[in-house]
Amino acid sequence: MVSCECNSKQGSLTTTISENEEIEIFQISNRYYEQEHEELPQELFEGNARWVEQMHENDSLFFEKLTKGQNPNYLFIGCSDSRVPAEQILGLGAGDLFVHRNIANVVNLTDHSLNAVIQFAVENLKVKHIIVCGHYDCGGIKAALAPHDHGPLHSWLCEVKEVVDGNKAELSVINSKEKRMEKIVELNVIQQCKNVMKLNRVQKSWKKYGIPHIQGIVFDIKTGQLIDLEIKNSKLYDEIKESHDSEL
Amino acid sequence: MVSCECNSKQGSLTTTISENEEIEIFQISNRYYEQEHEELPQELFEGNARWVEQMHENDSLFFEKLTKGQNPNYLFIGCSDSRVPAEQILGLGAGDLFVHRNIANVVNLTDHSLNAVIQFAVENLKVKHIIVCGHYDCGGIKAALAPHDHGPLHSWLCEVKEVVDGNKAELSVINSKEKRMEKIVELNVIQQCKNVMKLNRVQKSWKKYGIPHIQGIVFDIKTGQLIDLEIKNSKLYDEIKESHDSEL
Amino acid sequence: MVSCECNSKQGSLTTTISENEEIEIFQISNRYYEQEHEELPQELFEGNARWVEQMHENDSLFFEKLTKGQNPNYLFIGCSDSRVPAEQILGLGAGDLFVHRNIANVVNLTDHSLNAVIQFAVENLKVKHIIVCGHYDCGGIKAALAPHDHGPLHSWLCEVKEVVDGNKAELSVINSKEKRMEKIVELNVIQQCKNVMKLNRVQKSWKKYGIPHIQGIVFDIKTGQLIDLEIKNSKLYDEIKESHDSEL
Amino acid sequence: MVSCECNSKQGSLTTTISENEEIEIFQISNRYYEQEHEELPQELFEGNARWVEQMHENDSLFFEKLTKGQNPNYLFIGCSDSRVPAEQILGLGAGDLFVHRNIANVVNLTDHSLNAVIQFAVENLKVKHIIVCGHYDCGGIKAALAPHDHGPLHSWLCEVKEVVDGNKAELSVINSKEKRMEKIVELNVIQQCKNVMKLNRVQKSWKKYGIPHIQGIVFDIKTGQLIDLEIKNSKLYDEIKESHDSEL
Repeated sequence: MVSCECNSKQGSLTTTISENEEIEIFQISNRYYEQEHEELPQELFEGNARWVEQMHENDSLFFEKLTKGQNPNYLFIGCSDSRVPAEQILGLGAGDLFVHRNIANVVNLTDHSLNAVIQFAVENLKVKHIIVCGHYDCGGIKAALAPHDHGPLHSWLCEVKEVVDGNKAELSVINSKEKRMEKIVELNVIQQCKNVMKLNRVQKSWKKYGIPHIQGIVFDIKTGQLIDLEIKNSKLYDEIKESHDSEL
Repeated sequence: MVSCECNSKQGSLTTTISENEEIEIFQISNRYYEQEHEELPQELFEGNARWVEQMHENDSLFFEKLTKGQNPNYLFIGCSDSRVPAEQILGLGAGDLFVHRNIANVVNLTDHSLNAVIQFAVENLKVKHIIVCGHYDCGGIKAALAPHDHGPLHSWLCEVKEVVDGNKAELSVINSKEKRMEKIVELNVIQQCKNVMKLNRVQKSWKKYGIPHIQGIVFDIKTGQLIDLEIKNSKLYDEIKESHDSEL
Repeated sequence: MVSCECNSKQGSLTTTISENEEIEIFQISNRYYEQEHEELPQELFEGNARWVEQMHENDSLFFEKLTKGQNPNYLFIGCSDSRVPAEQILGLGAGDLFVHRNIANVVNLTDHSLNAVIQFAVENLKVKHIIVCGHYDCGGIKAALAPHDHGPLHSWLCEVKEVVDGNKAELSVINSKEKRMEKIVELNVIQQCKNVMKLNRVQKSWKKYGIPHIQGIVFDIKTGQLIDLEIKNSKLYDEIKESHDSEL
Repeated sequence: MVSCECNSKQGSLTTTISENEEIEIFQISNRYYEQEHEELPQELFEGNARWVEQMHENDSLFFEKLTKGQNPNYLFIGCSDSRVPAEQILGLGAGDLFVHRNIANVVNLTDHSLNAVIQFAVENLKVKHIIVCGHYDCGGIKAALAPHDHGPLHSWLCEVKEVVDGNKAELSVINSKEKRMEKIVELNVIQQCKNVMKLNRVQKSWKKYGIPHIQGIVFDIKTGQLIDLEIKNSKLYDEIKESHDSEL
């Protein structure tokens, strides 16, 4: 029984048993599952309580200050990957980082969700830096290179495929597969930084106020360290202005 | 001479008199700014170094384990607001939480970015819970109620406006403006949980494997605590199945 | 030999026994098909030649005038259904109608394609009317009511499902299934007209210049006739202004 | 008075008069405008009546046949430009052409509207040909090359900009500006045909059933004639398969 529950939770029953049996097992496991596991796990409430206590200890006015509103210096555009906790890897906390995370930290110019984030970050919050953060061993990058599905993920990753297609010469001379994958991660961050500069709101704000600065970094999962790709707005702008400056 | 270069590069001399002061300050600040402040601030590298050290201290194999891949139990759909650091408020760390954050934690069925996230989380990672997390004092909710712009943010927030429109009776009897705003935050989370259940990939997985469980929580910025809205999949499903079950 | 080439090119040999017959027929048909039918059918070139001749006959300066640019009075937002040829059913020709057609003539506020169409039509062309045209016997409406797929069509039609959900009382008293379906088509047009008014560019232009006028019509496939739903901007505006007027 | 109405309708008042006066004029002109011109113009009903009569004359069972459903051979992806009436330029009528028209006949892989159209056309209607139709003197192409706005049109046209960027060498040797613009129109059609082949639903159907065939044509507004770009599925496939075949 117990192992059945585990199986069904892992979703590995489809290959071994018929449709009918599967449903029955689900009905059983589901019954117990609902009673025991449907609730939001207690570990989250406990984790939250520990965090609240710790924040209070460090600064008794912490939450009082938070209620004053937000004034972050940074917009972070990163991957949804669970191994890249945005605030933690940068040593930041509540109030420091405006965050958008999607699969493979992609900046798609026609992405409505991203465009709303950019508008809020640039026009309302006036962030000083927009950080595009990739990471080695990115499942999204891997999925782009070895597609095996037919859903929205496939088309979402077309941006990453363009990066690979557009840099074949540079990639082909890298013999190590791991190094090649790491290079794609870096090239993807650089491309997405360019895409940020193509966004009219960003470009306009930078020309007028000198901000935001676009930053490209890679999080190295093997060491936990950040690699600065040393992006400069002026260089990004030079590369995209011919096609994407609406005022030239 | 130097400032002239800046001018031509920035192309922002065509503005009117009322903005002159600002531009002059910008011209000066920009010249020094580029030299001093364009780089990614040092505080982030220092913060990262502290984090790496701390993770090592707690578990010398921490990063070695991370390289094995991710296996998070949770997908977190939260607001981009800097005051809601997803992992921290739940007491979680690297590897625990697959994260998507946008303005006002909206689940728009035609949002390609979200659909790719959902596909990866449900089909590849087989997460056990999808947590929709709203928060009081949400700038996105406020912007939805008092729109003053003409950009993508305006249309992005139409989902929130539907929530307000659809719950006028309930909202109108709440006299305190603050309480009414808090209610809208809660109703928005509930609506977005329903929207998650409308997503075919979620619905199919839940029927077949009993997961993911959809959870709705609100982060109270005044206290740092979580409020569980006690969402149940079966209740969500009952409310949307007539229109959104593709197998009935 | 030839069929082998086809096989490898098509890469469709991994299918199961039950599909063999189909594949064989395909292999044969495909071989000849490629030789004979891959080209754009001749009927289209002949049809084009007839049209060119006819336009010349009516007006020898027809194409010379067309090269002067476009200045249409109307934007037509209609269904992709092949039985609703936009210009023909309105007795119009080249230069008269700016056209956007999608599944079920949906106006989704976060649809980038539609938003670009609206911007061009309202700001560049300054069209006088935006016509939302539905039609009875709409396959998109049917698909929304009896979903059986798991793709983008399912989520695209969520707008139509909202129309059905939001008008249950009115729909439930209609006994004839056909009449009920026709009512949904009409309600869908009305809802999409409201959505047009929610679009900031439309609302702003109407307030400032008195145009565009939003029009809702239904094409009755049984008779070929148009039904005017007698939409008025001021009424649309009254119904959406509370949530969607960004200047109130 | 009359001339004021005309002005306000054309939207040419903003530069000449102050905000206050403009509003007053609008209030006046709008009052008359509403009385006289808000209705759907009579020419459309008359045009419709002529069309219905003509169809009846040609075939008294025309509308009876239409009610049987649609079975078009073609999906047409064309520009919204009013000078490209899809059915007419191909000599086709009701029932022949499933139609999607947007700005600059763009095929964006993450466009939900297009993806729903493709799914319906390929999986439900099983169309034999997908025709991407561009046209010379395309306002969308021009807007992409000389951007002057800050709205969704700007980002929508990024696809066209990529076409220009990716073909600089070929374009730079064309001295005539008109010829260069025509070349961009052609290259844009070819790129969008490639994008159609990248779509999983299209690729899968073609591999299994030999259809749809992707066709690229250009409508020459100066002559009314079609130019066949002689697209072949197999060639499109060869160019995109490395990155976009999910089964290789």
